[in-house]
Amino acid sequence: MKVQLHCGVCHGKACLKRPYRPPTATTLSQHGSLHSNHISVRTAVIGLGLVLAAVAPSQAWAKSDPLPSWQDGASKRAVLHFVQRATAANSAEAIPVEERIAVFDNDGTLWSEQPLYIPFLFCVDRIRQLAPAHPEWRQQEPYASALRGDLNGLLRQGSQALGPLLVASSSGLSTEAFAEEVRRWIATARHPVSGRPPTAMVFQPMLELLRYLRANGFKTYIVSGGDVEFMRPWSERVYGVPPEQVIGSRLKLAYESTPAGPVLLRLPAIDALVDGAAKPVAIQQIIGRRPVAAFGNSDGDRQMLEWTRAGKGSRFALLVHHTDARREWAYDRTSAIGQLNRALDQARRQGWTVVDMAQDWRIIHPTAPAPGGPGLPNPASSTESR
Amino acid sequence: MKVQLHCGVCHGKACLKRPYRPPTATTLSQHGSLHSNHISVRTAVIGLGLVLAAVAPSQAWAKSDPLPSWQDGASKRAVLHFVQRATAANSAEAIPVEERIAVFDNDGTLWSEQPLYIPFLFCVDRIRQLAPAHPEWRQQEPYASALRGDLNGLLRQGSQALGPLLVASSSGLSTEAFAEEVRRWIATARHPVSGRPPTAMVFQPMLELLRYLRANGFKTYIVSGGDVEFMRPWSERVYGVPPEQVIGSRLKLAYESTPAGPVLLRLPAIDALVDGAAKPVAIQQIIGRRPVAAFGNSDGDRQMLEWTRAGKGSRFALLVHHTDARREWAYDRTSAIGQLNRALDQARRQGWTVVDMAQDWRIIHPTAPAPGGPGLPNPASSTESR
Repeated sequence: MKVQLHCGVCHGKACLKRPYRPPTATTLSQHGSLHSNHISVRTAVIGLGLVLAAVAPSQAWAKSDPLPSWQDGASKRAVLHFVQRATAANSAEAIPVEERIAVFDNDGTLWSEQPLYIPFLFCVDRIRQLAPAHPEWRQQEPYASALRGDLNGLLRQGSQALGPLLVASSSGLSTEAFAEEVRRWIATARHPVSGRPPTAMVFQPMLELLRYLRANGFKTYIVSGGDVEFMRPWSERVYGVPPEQVIGSRLKLAYESTPAGPVLLRLPAIDALVDGAAKPVAIQQIIGRRPVAAFGNSDGDRQMLEWTRAGKGSRFALLVHHTDARREWAYDRTSAIGQLNRALDQARRQGWTVVDMAQDWRIIHPTAPAPGGPGLPNPASSTESR
Repeated sequence: MKVQLHCGVCHGKACLKRPYRPPTATTLSQHGSLHSNHISVRTAVIGLGLVLAAVAPSQAWAKSDPLPSWQDGASKRAVLHFVQRATAANSAEAIPVEERIAVFDNDGTLWSEQPLYIPFLFCVDRIRQLAPAHPEWRQQEPYASALRGDLNGLLRQGSQALGPLLVASSSGLSTEAFAEEVRRWIATARHPVSGRPPTAMVFQPMLELLRYLRANGFKTYIVSGGDVEFMRPWSERVYGVPPEQVIGSRLKLAYESTPAGPVLLRLPAIDALVDGAAKPVAIQQIIGRRPVAAFGNSDGDRQMLEWTRAGKGSRFALLVHHTDARREWAYDRTSAIGQLNRALDQARRQGWTVVDMAQDWRIIHPTAPAPGGPGLPNPASSTESR
């Protein structure tokens, strides 16, 4: 990605002119900043002191704690308490294992969504790739902004730009050819602010949470507004969530015969946009059970969390509140990306758990190389299968 | 159900005038006939002799045979051979466990579909229940035929009658209220020919096959033209297939707030009819993996089997051919229900396995009471979880 953009700290022009260099020491980088160029030496030293105090758990503690990247506090206790109640033997609050369905939003909940949703960055790159065959795009929005790399220009067009970009960038291929394009992109693209692979922008505390829930018999699903076929080629490797547990927006498909055999062709028409009220609808249509736990970060997740919480018995709803301008981004009620306004009010009214990212998470993004690849954890390597 | 209908043997009017009485001896009933009124004493005696010879396997054999209701023959051998190859250690033909997706049509593949698809019988009963509020239905097709119990009249209107009947009979309720209606109906309705509960019309050999595949790491899915919300309330108990592994036709849903909390309202509009080419489309949209094994019985399953077989590596496609007019029904190329014509030709051309129901299945419908309920097997009680 070589798009021009502005980070939430500098609000300016210089951020990407000096390319991002990942920190070298693991301990520092775990608590480093996406915007370290803008932080004074004094702040960094104080930060480092706090970090060293915070990330030195005893071996025994680290082994027994299923959520080592979570600070001890109300959010972590709420998660642990819910899982303990749900799995307690002979308890009225226990949830039968077949009903332990947990649903997770993706963008902003499982990985960073600033300065632009990552699936949208993929679309922008595809538009550039296809542009030579479409000279008219240079004068036509939203394609012209995409070709100029003007992400702010795209944002100003609001969510209405997303549909045409998705259709233009991602239709006309078979599902298998499209998955190949996604695999190629996800392996080679770089996040425009961090310079890291897109899949290294996942949240380490949420990876631990996914794994902890699965280890306790929960079946973990992703329910995202992003294109379902954009997520499936890497969701199992990165999140431990297999393709059949990924729900997302989708294009219409046509079954067509070719000399090489049948294909499913991605048509230039949207079949479903899975956001807001469409999330509980898609959950019912595809899963057919009401979840018992739901995790989101924006108003687009409000109805999913509300639907989950309104069921009978033990229920859990959690919002990730992006409060950490130093290590990630800080935004909520007025953000053009991942707006969190009505859902935040409802969370406070109804007692949903709200993660304060700056306070509650010791680590944001994973850093250490792991079996899954450079800079990636390998959640799929755990033995649980739900 | 008190609908008037004609069975495939008598082609006449008398069949239901003498109500069906289930045979009392288990051995006889396992090989009894839906149409026993029409079979001579001599045939019955010969049949009983064959039956006694056929259903007396040694205990040891019964224990080791995963498919005891299947006659030894080419179909059974093909199934066993496929599963052995798919699960062999260190074999190039082995299928990784996460890719062991098996898809099953429901009507005519897992349970009987004559004289009318069972989901359609549910719609007919619902139309009767709702009729007092709709006096206009007495003069309006397809409702008038449904109210007269004229299943042949409905059949003559072809599949075009299904949409309006589905919408009129099944919309306007919340998903939870609808599931309650289905549970009530499935527990109290009787099959119009056998007089047995609808769920007792399942095929014992297919229950064994589902269980055998799951025991070998396959994840079993239903992919049916029937309303997905009609199948989910009982699919786990009867087939061992949980709601989230049931795919079917669906109505549009609306997320609505009520004083008692949010509901998902079933709208009077079809969102997807999952038949023919729409089956591989729904499989891709919902499962996101190409299955490795597919099981069907009609032209509506042709593309699903074709798509499955066209993938790389070990693949399996099987058609149930209804050839048993004595114990079930015999029909194929010209049937108004479950027509099997193009798919039968393609099966022969491409080497799909074709089950000859009369030859290949020792038992059609289960008879012995089991933990799942009277006349029902209990496949969910096995320990496999896929």
